Amino acid sequence: MEYRRLGKSGLQVSALSFGSWLTFGKQIENGIADELMTIAYDNGINFFDNAEIYARGKSEEVMGEILKKKGWSRDSYIVSSKAFFGLGGKDLKPTQKGLHRKHLVEACEQALKRFQLDYLDLYFCHRPDKQTPIEETVWTMHNLIQQGKILYWGTSEWSAQEIMEAHMVAQRYSLIGPTMEQPQYNMLERNKVEGEFAQLYKTVGLGTTIWSPLASGVLTGKYNDGFPEGTRLGIEGLDWLRDNTLVEANMKRVKELTKFAFDLGMTMPILALAWCLKNENVSTVILGASKRAQLIENFKAFEGRDRLTPQVMEQIEQILKNKPAPPSF
Amino acid sequence: MEYRRLGKSGLQVSALSFGSWLTFGKQIENGIADELMTIAYDNGINFFDNAEIYARGKSEEVMGEILKKKGWSRDSYIVSSKAFFGLGGKDLKPTQKGLHRKHLVEACEQALKRFQLDYLDLYFCHRPDKQTPIEETVWTMHNLIQQGKILYWGTSEWSAQEIMEAHMVAQRYSLIGPTMEQPQYNMLERNKVEGEFAQLYKTVGLGTTIWSPLASGVLTGKYNDGFPEGTRLGIEGLDWLRDNTLVEANMKRVKELTKFAFDLGMTMPILALAWCLKNENVSTVILGASKRAQLIENFKAFEGRDRLTPQVMEQIEQILKNKPAPPSF
Amino acid sequence: MEYRRLGKSGLQVSALSFGSWLTFGKQIENGIADELMTIAYDNGINFFDNAEIYARGKSEEVMGEILKKKGWSRDSYIVSSKAFFGLGGKDLKPTQKGLHRKHLVEACEQALKRFQLDYLDLYFCHRPDKQTPIEETVWTMHNLIQQGKILYWGTSEWSAQEIMEAHMVAQRYSLIGPTMEQPQYNMLERNKVEGEFAQLYKTVGLGTTIWSPLASGVLTGKYNDGFPEGTRLGIEGLDWLRDNTLVEANMKRVKELTKFAFDLGMTMPILALAWCLKNENVSTVILGASKRAQLIENFKAFEGRDRLTPQVMEQIEQILKNKPAPPSF
Amino acid sequence: MEYRRLGKSGLQVSALSFGSWLTFGKQIENGIADELMTIAYDNGINFFDNAEIYARGKSEEVMGEILKKKGWSRDSYIVSSKAFFGLGGKDLKPTQKGLHRKHLVEACEQALKRFQLDYLDLYFCHRPDKQTPIEETVWTMHNLIQQGKILYWGTSEWSAQEIMEAHMVAQRYSLIGPTMEQPQYNMLERNKVEGEFAQLYKTVGLGTTIWSPLASGVLTGKYNDGFPEGTRLGIEGLDWLRDNTLVEANMKRVKELTKFAFDLGMTMPILALAWCLKNENVSTVILGASKRAQLIENFKAFEGRDRLTPQVMEQIEQILKNKPAPPSF
Repeated sequence: MEYRRLGKSGLQVSALSFGSWLTFGKQIENGIADELMTIAYDNGINFFDNAEIYARGKSEEVMGEILKKKGWSRDSYIVSSKAFFGLGGKDLKPTQKGLHRKHLVEACEQALKRFQLDYLDLYFCHRPDKQTPIEETVWTMHNLIQQGKILYWGTSEWSAQEIMEAHMVAQRYSLIGPTMEQPQYNMLERNKVEGEFAQLYKTVGLGTTIWSPLASGVLTGKYNDGFPEGTRLGIEGLDWLRDNTLVEANMKRVKELTKFAFDLGMTMPILALAWCLKNENVSTVILGASKRAQLIENFKAFEGRDRLTPQVMEQIEQILKNKPAPPSF
Repeated sequence: MEYRRLGKSGLQVSALSFGSWLTFGKQIENGIADELMTIAYDNGINFFDNAEIYARGKSEEVMGEILKKKGWSRDSYIVSSKAFFGLGGKDLKPTQKGLHRKHLVEACEQALKRFQLDYLDLYFCHRPDKQTPIEETVWTMHNLIQQGKILYWGTSEWSAQEIMEAHMVAQRYSLIGPTMEQPQYNMLERNKVEGEFAQLYKTVGLGTTIWSPLASGVLTGKYNDGFPEGTRLGIEGLDWLRDNTLVEANMKRVKELTKFAFDLGMTMPILALAWCLKNENVSTVILGASKRAQLIENFKAFEGRDRLTPQVMEQIEQILKNKPAPPSF
Repeated sequence: MEYRRLGKSGLQVSALSFGSWLTFGKQIENGIADELMTIAYDNGINFFDNAEIYARGKSEEVMGEILKKKGWSRDSYIVSSKAFFGLGGKDLKPTQKGLHRKHLVEACEQALKRFQLDYLDLYFCHRPDKQTPIEETVWTMHNLIQQGKILYWGTSEWSAQEIMEAHMVAQRYSLIGPTMEQPQYNMLERNKVEGEFAQLYKTVGLGTTIWSPLASGVLTGKYNDGFPEGTRLGIEGLDWLRDNTLVEANMKRVKELTKFAFDLGMTMPILALAWCLKNENVSTVILGASKRAQLIENFKAFEGRDRLTPQVMEQIEQILKNKPAPPSF
Repeated sequence: MEYRRLGKSGLQVSALSFGSWLTFGKQIENGIADELMTIAYDNGINFFDNAEIYARGKSEEVMGEILKKKGWSRDSYIVSSKAFFGLGGKDLKPTQKGLHRKHLVEACEQALKRFQLDYLDLYFCHRPDKQTPIEETVWTMHNLIQQGKILYWGTSEWSAQEIMEAHMVAQRYSLIGPTMEQPQYNMLERNKVEGEFAQLYKTVGLGTTIWSPLASGVLTGKYNDGFPEGTRLGIEGLDWLRDNTLVEANMKRVKELTKFAFDLGMTMPILALAWCLKNENVSTVILGASKRAQLIENFKAFEGRDRLTPQVMEQIEQILKNKPAPPSF
């Protein structure tokens, strides 16, 4: 396994990590979840990603139960949660979601209970909250660190401007600012990580824990011949993801890439993961495997990465033609 | 004339203002320049925009000479300059451009001499400078304010992230941050002002002095039937502007808008200016007229603005179909 | 016993103190450890030095067990630990060492458990960590103080530049900076304490808890006739210490000093300890005795120190000829 | 010419620059001085180094007179002075030297008069002053920047610890800290630039304007056969330089290097300059030529630098054997 610093922080996170979104407590049985985490840990993965909203809390319960059973040394792995959506659903009370102090504090406490842990290593603000001043959010996350309930805090799907504002507030009050951001990133979705965030790696030393490296499965090539039922993008409530990803131009790209990967002697998913690993501003690529074989296969991404020479990268660029424009001046 | 606060600052700038880019010292004779400025001033325009690079210093000389001759009270108008490009040309020495302390200080001194003025009201960093830490730039602009050589400082064509960084630095050292940004803004170019900067109006109270409200003339409708020689977009060195603006989709928009303006009973340029004035986050719309009649006509934009009801604005939106997406969450 | 302030702090530490490096949990039996600590405590030593890496955690367990058994009042002694190396060994995971927040927090918790204590008096960063920003380390140590888990924090084998940077960060965020540094210091190794750190005593009020006052035994004179097996410098993994210390020039110095000590009427080790005590910038001299008689003998260092008149010190300087040059200007 | 940023600042300084130490107003006639500066400027050198003590003020007078006569654009070059020694000599009053506010302010004013300039680009504290708190010095330099009398300030022959302290003070009071340091640096004197300062390039973005790249001529090879009268190192008052440099080990190194340079097809001085240019942490190498031919010859250093492959650098290291040890941990 390869380890990378989480942005400028000293925490070393495995370059591939394991997330339980859409799987734990939902798509897969707990026995499979156990097997997957064991394979991940045994192969050097040290970061397990989670969130309150994943399977409405059940994903954290399943993961916590496995961690307890395994008895791995607490200092050998990194666990995250994310707050914002609450446990979802229509009956949520106004105080049960968002980034105000009450929800962040209560959500953290609840996540720790579901995990059966004393502290989270990483805690994310799952979305920006226009109804809460960033000041209140930064203060709350800082206090959670001071209380020892979390070690590092970050954001997910925030804009560069919002991340900068969080750092500005942190500096103004001498607080600990956000360490990492969890954006979507893959061959079909590059704007934030390669464009908008470009300066943040230098100015605030932003780390990134990227999700959806396979574009919800589109980059496996499995939708090349149409959109079958029962696959991830068919899940209710994910229409927004589907609509952005399954556009015609992308389907054309994936077909060409699949052929290109074949010529390179690797599979389409391995090429897609390898390509993400190639980006030095990516701290870790979160895998969302639901099957043993799939997860084991994914570790070939490092070999794949080593074969992405500048020439090969340039050929990929010719197929993708979606590189974010550099700043005009 | 209508006056608006320059962002959160207390300085009131006329909602239409007058810029000398591409005209003073270059396209038009000094006599015309005098006439135009007089018409502008007599109609309540109080902001005259300039930059060191405009006609390589000559634009400032011409403007300064006119101001001197007219003898208008110094406290009745606002004058700007911008530094970054130096005087342009191939023989520039490395110390004669950029946003480091030496160039900003020397450029300010030189602009004051060309203008024959004791201080500038507004001083802009004409572009971001990747080779100078923003810290050095903020410190220098602050010191120029302290020395009484400039009154407010701002940026031009910076990203939201860079503007936030400038404010972060200003706050850290208790310095005066940038008050305004000068972005391109018009019906065809909306991303920065309506999208990227959206939060900045609230967080740092950003003012905007927008340039190219007519998209370099495209929004006058004069290119509707092709691209004649001798017009602004034919000027050598402005290919970048031309290439972004004269795309097919835009030409289609302008044709429809021209018809729409006619139905509304106003000309295309007046509709374009009125539409800019409608945006409350625009502090002032910089006009770049080179002819008397053109400038006088432009003042009708206020009447035009008053006729842009919510319904009309929505119809325009249906033609433009280029409204920047709000942040997804 | 004589007590000295730990740098500018108000904490009074005994001028001789007792460290368990290489002995507790390793070279000596727990019964001997108990005897040595009892002699130390009864003779007024109030500081017991330790680290996570000493005997891979066992040194802390042994010391903690003794402290518990003795029942000495907790406010009558000072206990330290140090984090950086983790528990050592080849199987360490990347998150189990270094000065990032996760390791410092977890290492502190683990040390407290091994010690069976509620808080450490002194907590050291055992080495600088180039992979973690000093900012993250300072914040974490500050927070541990706020949480009541440690009372003072310091560094060990850091450079003057790094210590200054820690203070700069502390000042910037209004945090508590490092109080003390634990450097090697003895007649043969003077550069850091007398040269590099010279200004730090004044500027930041640095305290020093010096280790190896006898240069790993070389200054006892026992290697004067060669390097016997089974002595400290023969321990595997300490080659770096041996190589720096056992150089020919040093052996010559020690032979002359041994004779000089004899003429003064004291033993070589007493002269060496007395000489360290003579330096006012040394807060405490950590003894590493493994035998009763040896420890008891060491207390004569105070008498010895009182006989080091300016003349005698000058004669020693003539033998050592290794006084760090003062800054050239 | 090649230009480099002065540390993290945005000011671009020529990689070779020209200093007047020991020459202007002293060893060489003013006509020669004029010729040398003209050659330098025409070849792209944009930094002229000076100090109050050089020829007791005469060096600045000569340089100022030449700059005036030439009429080069003020924004095309960078001029420095340094304060600390006053004008030297035995009759100096206590207020006429050092880094207290009175001398720094008066020395700056006097240097400007001797130069006939309105401001200095760079102003150095020529040595550390143990009799003045660094706080007073930092405040004074900051105020001189605010008053527009200097643009950047720095230090010369300060220790890493002192430079850090200056930055700490600057930060505490929100002042502008030192941008650059002027240390001695050459193949025979590497400790400060390669060892002691190693972290400062990263932490505070230190720029370096290095002096004595030829080790006072020793690296020209002209002393290979003994120490003739009438050469630089024979100058009265430079015994300290002579004593450090002309040691036997160095003479041996230079003899071997001279042969090595010959085999490489370049002269000894060119090799010595090229080797300095190779170090990326060197912002500029100050040349001290006193003859036309010598100065013109020096520009070959860039060609020479391009031939210093990693292999060649390693061979040089084998001859020098004086690379500063990296930090032990």
